[in-house]
Amino acid sequence: MSTVRRVGVLTGGGDAPGLNAVIRAVVRACKVAYGVTVVGISEGFTGLVEMRARELDLDDISGLLVRGGTILGTTNRGNPFRYAYRRPDGVEELVDASGTAKKNVEKLGLDCLIVIGGDGSLSIGERFWRELGIPVVGVPKTIDNDLSATDYTFGFATAVQSATWALDCLHTTAESHHRVMLLEVMGRDAGWIALHAGLAGGGDVVLIPEIPFRFEPLIAKFQARERRGRPFSLVVVAEGAAPAGGSQVFAGQDAITGWKRLGGISASIAQEIEARGGYEVRATVLGHIQRGGTPVPNDRILASRFGIEAARLAVEGSFGSMVALRGDEIVAVPLADAIGRLKKVDPQCQLMKAARAIGIVFGDENPEDASDSEG
Amino acid sequence: MSTVRRVGVLTGGGDAPGLNAVIRAVVRACKVAYGVTVVGISEGFTGLVEMRARELDLDDISGLLVRGGTILGTTNRGNPFRYAYRRPDGVEELVDASGTAKKNVEKLGLDCLIVIGGDGSLSIGERFWRELGIPVVGVPKTIDNDLSATDYTFGFATAVQSATWALDCLHTTAESHHRVMLLEVMGRDAGWIALHAGLAGGGDVVLIPEIPFRFEPLIAKFQARERRGRPFSLVVVAEGAAPAGGSQVFAGQDAITGWKRLGGISASIAQEIEARGGYEVRATVLGHIQRGGTPVPNDRILASRFGIEAARLAVEGSFGSMVALRGDEIVAVPLADAIGRLKKVDPQCQLMKAARAIGIVFGDENPEDASDSEG
Amino acid sequence: MSTVRRVGVLTGGGDAPGLNAVIRAVVRACKVAYGVTVVGISEGFTGLVEMRARELDLDDISGLLVRGGTILGTTNRGNPFRYAYRRPDGVEELVDASGTAKKNVEKLGLDCLIVIGGDGSLSIGERFWRELGIPVVGVPKTIDNDLSATDYTFGFATAVQSATWALDCLHTTAESHHRVMLLEVMGRDAGWIALHAGLAGGGDVVLIPEIPFRFEPLIAKFQARERRGRPFSLVVVAEGAAPAGGSQVFAGQDAITGWKRLGGISASIAQEIEARGGYEVRATVLGHIQRGGTPVPNDRILASRFGIEAARLAVEGSFGSMVALRGDEIVAVPLADAIGRLKKVDPQCQLMKAARAIGIVFGDENPEDASDSEG
Amino acid sequence: MSTVRRVGVLTGGGDAPGLNAVIRAVVRACKVAYGVTVVGISEGFTGLVEMRARELDLDDISGLLVRGGTILGTTNRGNPFRYAYRRPDGVEELVDASGTAKKNVEKLGLDCLIVIGGDGSLSIGERFWRELGIPVVGVPKTIDNDLSATDYTFGFATAVQSATWALDCLHTTAESHHRVMLLEVMGRDAGWIALHAGLAGGGDVVLIPEIPFRFEPLIAKFQARERRGRPFSLVVVAEGAAPAGGSQVFAGQDAITGWKRLGGISASIAQEIEARGGYEVRATVLGHIQRGGTPVPNDRILASRFGIEAARLAVEGSFGSMVALRGDEIVAVPLADAIGRLKKVDPQCQLMKAARAIGIVFGDENPEDASDSEG
Repeated sequence: MSTVRRVGVLTGGGDAPGLNAVIRAVVRACKVAYGVTVVGISEGFTGLVEMRARELDLDDISGLLVRGGTILGTTNRGNPFRYAYRRPDGVEELVDASGTAKKNVEKLGLDCLIVIGGDGSLSIGERFWRELGIPVVGVPKTIDNDLSATDYTFGFATAVQSATWALDCLHTTAESHHRVMLLEVMGRDAGWIALHAGLAGGGDVVLIPEIPFRFEPLIAKFQARERRGRPFSLVVVAEGAAPAGGSQVFAGQDAITGWKRLGGISASIAQEIEARGGYEVRATVLGHIQRGGTPVPNDRILASRFGIEAARLAVEGSFGSMVALRGDEIVAVPLADAIGRLKKVDPQCQLMKAARAIGIVFGDENPEDASDSEG
Repeated sequence: MSTVRRVGVLTGGGDAPGLNAVIRAVVRACKVAYGVTVVGISEGFTGLVEMRARELDLDDISGLLVRGGTILGTTNRGNPFRYAYRRPDGVEELVDASGTAKKNVEKLGLDCLIVIGGDGSLSIGERFWRELGIPVVGVPKTIDNDLSATDYTFGFATAVQSATWALDCLHTTAESHHRVMLLEVMGRDAGWIALHAGLAGGGDVVLIPEIPFRFEPLIAKFQARERRGRPFSLVVVAEGAAPAGGSQVFAGQDAITGWKRLGGISASIAQEIEARGGYEVRATVLGHIQRGGTPVPNDRILASRFGIEAARLAVEGSFGSMVALRGDEIVAVPLADAIGRLKKVDPQCQLMKAARAIGIVFGDENPEDASDSEG
Repeated sequence: MSTVRRVGVLTGGGDAPGLNAVIRAVVRACKVAYGVTVVGISEGFTGLVEMRARELDLDDISGLLVRGGTILGTTNRGNPFRYAYRRPDGVEELVDASGTAKKNVEKLGLDCLIVIGGDGSLSIGERFWRELGIPVVGVPKTIDNDLSATDYTFGFATAVQSATWALDCLHTTAESHHRVMLLEVMGRDAGWIALHAGLAGGGDVVLIPEIPFRFEPLIAKFQARERRGRPFSLVVVAEGAAPAGGSQVFAGQDAITGWKRLGGISASIAQEIEARGGYEVRATVLGHIQRGGTPVPNDRILASRFGIEAARLAVEGSFGSMVALRGDEIVAVPLADAIGRLKKVDPQCQLMKAARAIGIVFGDENPEDASDSEG
Repeated sequence: MSTVRRVGVLTGGGDAPGLNAVIRAVVRACKVAYGVTVVGISEGFTGLVEMRARELDLDDISGLLVRGGTILGTTNRGNPFRYAYRRPDGVEELVDASGTAKKNVEKLGLDCLIVIGGDGSLSIGERFWRELGIPVVGVPKTIDNDLSATDYTFGFATAVQSATWALDCLHTTAESHHRVMLLEVMGRDAGWIALHAGLAGGGDVVLIPEIPFRFEPLIAKFQARERRGRPFSLVVVAEGAAPAGGSQVFAGQDAITGWKRLGGISASIAQEIEARGGYEVRATVLGHIQRGGTPVPNDRILASRFGIEAARLAVEGSFGSMVALRGDEIVAVPLADAIGRLKKVDPQCQLMKAARAIGIVFGDENPEDASDSEG
């Protein structure tokens, strides 16, 4: 029999639609199925170090299924192993606060800590378990869908929906104005959002980090569409996309050095397309909008299933593990196996081949092919 | 080398969001990847018997990705093996028009016929191939997601989204008015839409055809929620749900005999809950709204992938097969294996267990449990 | 100077998207602009009689702008002048509890009571002020938009959006299946939702309570569309629509007597169209979905403005008045003038003429005209 | 009796949701109500000079109500009075092509030209009528809602809805991360979109061109919210907003000189807030997304009414006029009166006062007030 009586839960890293649904499911499953108390920890690991926590009961989670964000708060900072401690004299220094974190887990009486987070937060969780013996269960979160241990993560479908909606909007404008419209979406290391939104939103060109692109196939595609009476095109750009040969192809300009790259890589690409092809180009950076809003049904369900299964693992004492989606089943995988490896788009996968089969250009094509085949 | 030069495509049965995306993908893939001509046949098999068809090129499919329905038209009638032929004297008689259909395939010069449809249309397609030697490739379509050969079908995610949106709407009304709100969704034989929407929309009770229900666990659930300060509940009812013991439990009333059961089973259930529990109950039948509207991104992608793969099978001469989703891959399965078997919700599957773990009631519970655990 | 220090607020009647936005604005304006305390009364007038109330501060209204329903709860019952009092012996009797209500206003220390409600609630509010001297300020609420004293009410635009979305969904199904699709929307006495949704959703026929309809012009319209290659039509039916000559035109059937008329008038109309025209007809009753969901921006703004202005009137002591929209301004009107008069659709108004000009049929046309002119 | 038999229609300037609905209504009203032929001219005035036009009938406008953009195409160029003519030697020169335009109106047999456009296109239309005697009827279009002659223009409500949706998305992220989130929306000269979206989306600060802002009241507002346990804020910025004292307040940086100001003014404002207040700030530029997508019901109705009324004015020979919304009526105003005057937000208007009453800060406040009153 499990002796787990109190379970802690925290959210770390950037927010994603569905975090609240995970929290709701953890609380519901713990309460309804196991009669276990849940303690919510504020602001990720920071709240653990600083001992900010409160019990969560069924009233606290009412209405959470439809709400984006996380009621616990989250932060990209607060790694207890390198904690930014502010000394009485006001100076900040990095200290190892993992001992404090462990003591606080004990003070809070937690028999297990459920860590909902991305690669960074899960890595901390893995060290908690391996080095400090804190019982941890992980729930993967990455809006980019680039965690290798799980087929999909919640938040991804909602981000794809927002990006697809934006493409639907840009489509009518592109068509009315005979323009090339760029949409920059999230995806620093992996092009999943760009690829899915490009397929769903009728993108003509999709640029992803996995495939360094040249401008020639893009221009060839635009020209082929023009010849066919379609003098407009939609380009989806993952924020991590980069030209083959590196950024020196952007001759003598520095737009990408702007404030926090608000203009993004798409500004440079837009400028280059205008210069090379004589097109009227407009770029839009979807940005943080992708992280927010009401989760789509799939994300609500996946997040709920993750939360339910994490509660079960916690209560059953399966520590050091992480929930993951494999096919249509939620499974448990070792935390140690889940971290540190990115899941990238395989340029030879079936989905990529499908995209090419209907004429989507990725920038590595032989331009003659593109001009033959449009699409 | 394939000698396929002309491919026909038709849509049969009830419409589903994504049909147009399949058609678009078939045309795009045939044109862009294979240089093959596509002929669209109007109104399902009726159009084949009556020889209504036209070539489809890239201009015909412009803008189709976002449009519900099918530009080819569809019908639930028109089985060529039992064709309702109207004689010159005005009398209708059922005749075998499959020979005419075969001749028309030849007249149209079709090297393959892509049949997009549900179990009925695919069964006709299978007989075309097996009995008449017409080269057929199938694309599965069922909004209920109850075809056993494929993990998911397009249209299902859009229907779940519509049902979830409706639950979100009813939720605030239920809460404001302290009511039990019922939403009847599609699912004559399988409860997939009800189960997914119930999970995504925070349903308290989900009634599906696979699980005959009793009213006692429902009333116990409502009472448990009331005790917890939640004097309202959401009930999701699949149209095929039925009480254990059959409809005689509905004492002395006949509301379900109304015009085309517009009131649906939910009217009877609502009435019974009012009578037994003293609750204020309201029922809504979502109906055809579930079949329409812009497909969600997932359905656009799945439909596109089905269309692309069907085009490939057609061009490569893999006749008698059907595309299907298995995990994350599109595969080909024999048409003969795909038809005649429904995929039902397994009451013991992980998803069902997850639903029960967060307190969703299906009507087969021990009421004492429900009143203990709410949820 | 005003001596108003505490303001009560309650919501009565059926819920409508935007109620929470009014409550939020009342609290915000009272706190931010006037430093006045707000007391929320639960469940409409029932809560006033039964003394269920609590103070509302800024934390209570966080996140309310996007939420449908009312956090205060509402009910169609609870008229203090005819209060259903349950005696100790369990028998219910109607008593005049208005004196209790008045005493409770005093016990709660309320200097003014803001009543958010429809004609029924506002009439009670008016009697409170006129007969009992309770200081009242009214905020009009009717999803049907049929209150004569204000140009528009919040909730109406959201209901029109839901109805229009449903029509967009039904449109693709009607077109794919060559059907006549009916959508029944709210509007017992006035056809505003039907008229607006019909215009916005491309309805071919719109049936409203203000215009008794005949079936001949409908059939003529369907036939005219058929001749033009459009063998499908969309019909929007207000729930209060009725045929000229009364319901005896529905020969020998009683579908409309079903449970709470779940099938609605549209079931009868659908049946009749099938019988007369040989069309395949499907009907959908949108029902309570129209009352729920996130309010559209216009409704959030209108509700906020109503709440802000009601707070101002309360604080300034302008009792016995109601806020109303006139043109683009919020004005105060006497409660006595606002109640008891419905705002109906004038068949000769510009909007109706516009609808007819683009070919929308209302059922009172000369069928020959309709068959000439399709549209 | 009118002798108008052929009416031309063109769309000019930036696109806006509802353009297609106007075109549809013009064609429907001309065909159904008047039996008049409609000729669609491509690409605004360019198509008139270059004689690109085609007849539009009922089939051409099928499905247009839900589609953003314009099937006629549009452009910001092509003023016939200063036409960029490309000589045979390839050199472009500006010529007066208004005579060609007039001849083409005659060649096309147009008895009237309906010009759908913003201030620029309508000014050309007005000169056509006044200087050249071309019979013109105008339809106002500006997504910014800044045309003085009409209360509202179509497209505005859809833009507000997109901006509000974006704010809803950013809200949950701001709250989860304790950030200040900026959303830059359209509005070069007038702050209507920012004001409406700010009210509907719960903005804490709204910056509009009509009110030069200082940073002190902003920081005071953020601090007041922090003290109240709300360590996050939403800022809505119209693209034309500017600090009091001009851009030199942005000390020593040049982020706004990036490619086509993709980063927008919001990048500079974000940077300044970070520097002054120590907040984590993120900015999003909504951009062209606001111009696209399916029009909301209100815009579909307003656009339809404009189109219907423009058709009536054209057929009745009321040339030199423009349709406009006044209150709830569509009226005709002289084109000469409609152009050249912008409608700006009056800082003293009721809507602004309402915004201030619930605590929205515009940057011209006395910071002490803000810190007292939060809101």
